Amino acid sequence: MTDSKSNSSPIGIFDSGIGGLTVVREIFRKLPGENIIYLGDTASVPYGTKSSETVIKYSQINSRFLVSKGIKLLVVACNTASAVSLTGLRWDLEIPVMGVIEPGARKGVRITKTGKVGVIGTPSTIKSGAYKKAMENMAPEIKVYSKACPLLVPLAEEGWTDGEIAQLTARRYLEPLKESGIDVLILGCTHYPLLKSTIQKVIGEDVALVDSAEETALEIERTLKENGISNEGSYSTQREFYLTDVSETFIAIAERFLGEKVERVEQVDI
Amino acid sequence: MTDSKSNSSPIGIFDSGIGGLTVVREIFRKLPGENIIYLGDTASVPYGTKSSETVIKYSQINSRFLVSKGIKLLVVACNTASAVSLTGLRWDLEIPVMGVIEPGARKGVRITKTGKVGVIGTPSTIKSGAYKKAMENMAPEIKVYSKACPLLVPLAEEGWTDGEIAQLTARRYLEPLKESGIDVLILGCTHYPLLKSTIQKVIGEDVALVDSAEETALEIERTLKENGISNEGSYSTQREFYLTDVSETFIAIAERFLGEKVERVEQVDI
Repeated sequence: MTDSKSNSSPIGIFDSGIGGLTVVREIFRKLPGENIIYLGDTASVPYGTKSSETVIKYSQINSRFLVSKGIKLLVVACNTASAVSLTGLRWDLEIPVMGVIEPGARKGVRITKTGKVGVIGTPSTIKSGAYKKAMENMAPEIKVYSKACPLLVPLAEEGWTDGEIAQLTARRYLEPLKESGIDVLILGCTHYPLLKSTIQKVIGEDVALVDSAEETALEIERTLKENGISNEGSYSTQREFYLTDVSETFIAIAERFLGEKVERVEQVDI
Repeated sequence: MTDSKSNSSPIGIFDSGIGGLTVVREIFRKLPGENIIYLGDTASVPYGTKSSETVIKYSQINSRFLVSKGIKLLVVACNTASAVSLTGLRWDLEIPVMGVIEPGARKGVRITKTGKVGVIGTPSTIKSGAYKKAMENMAPEIKVYSKACPLLVPLAEEGWTDGEIAQLTARRYLEPLKESGIDVLILGCTHYPLLKSTIQKVIGEDVALVDSAEETALEIERTLKENGISNEGSYSTQREFYLTDVSETFIAIAERFLGEKVERVEQVDI
């Protein structure tokens, strides 16, 4: 049996920056009763171009901070960090730990008909092969086509999510995937949901897009239920946002990602 | 009088990442006898979107590392760090400290005929107003037109330095500057020299581009001479490169920036 404190304890979410707020947005939509504490490691962002050792070190520091706040579940809302540090964090921590890769991979495997699934992400996520490995474990017959798209993150942050530049960039990255005959494309980076309509236009309507933020929220719901630690209800009372570096630019971008005003942001030195 | 040890002591150069290698390249060209130690804080890159407090903290840590290596001159080869931490570093250190902003600003003021000078850089460099202030101090009648161009750094790192996407992006950023009647444009970011030909095409042949890497190398030469600590000669024996995070991506990009093979790179935890 779980005591009531556990149920109302917050979900802890960390990301390298503010991209993970697309996951928070989905939690707010689907699980409005849940309290949350978000940590964006904006002093070190981005993780996507850094080595695994460095990303693992950052993940450990971030988790320690959130665990010290009494969270009941940890979400690694960063594809890069999920790819390299999930196993270690699960080993270290006593609460459930979720990443953003497995939920997206599972959905991809479930809905493909051609057995050919595309994945796009940051250089380090793609290089880790995490999506490919996850899908091949679930269904060894699946063929996975991956492509690193380093410019999509800055495009999303600049707010240039449609128009000619976004389309040309998406076309340059996606053309090889299109030719491979995929019928599902996993958006393997929390920034990419903002570019969804451009990506859909370029890859074509017959390719289904998997938004890992959405899938992760569904998996969080399932995990909370399985562990008997859901907080039912229609509103949450605790929504705390911490950044390791607060700049005006980030706040503006954060609100675009979250889809609402960021009420309370605190800078922390962790 | 300066002893010979001082003259052969290395020049220390730091940048948030590998953009500062464009300055190193110019040092190699113009001052082939100088020994150098380069530190790229790739574990924290980029600085351009972070707060001044965080950038100052990083600058202090970087300088401490280089000073401990016995450098004779410190070059802050990062516009963002130059903008916010130069005064403090000069206060703290006993060796000459140079940034990349003053050399570029000085050249801009010297060559403009219309008195209208444009500056492009990262959001934080532009927001600091460092180029504007430097030029207005040198020549109060100068009119400075600034524009933050956040997508140019990732374009340079992706190697998409010409072609349609680079041109459209440059046009979107530079159009307002073009209309203002500038006759000089300062490339206020160490990444931008790689995009020089695209920028020149978009802004027009009648606007002179100022490459701060080149100007900085000239100012290093002057400063070394003034202080009697030049190391004449046609080759250097010490060329050390340190990164706070070494990834394959960085090495590949580094070689594009440096224009030659990076012989020896060491990862340091500072």
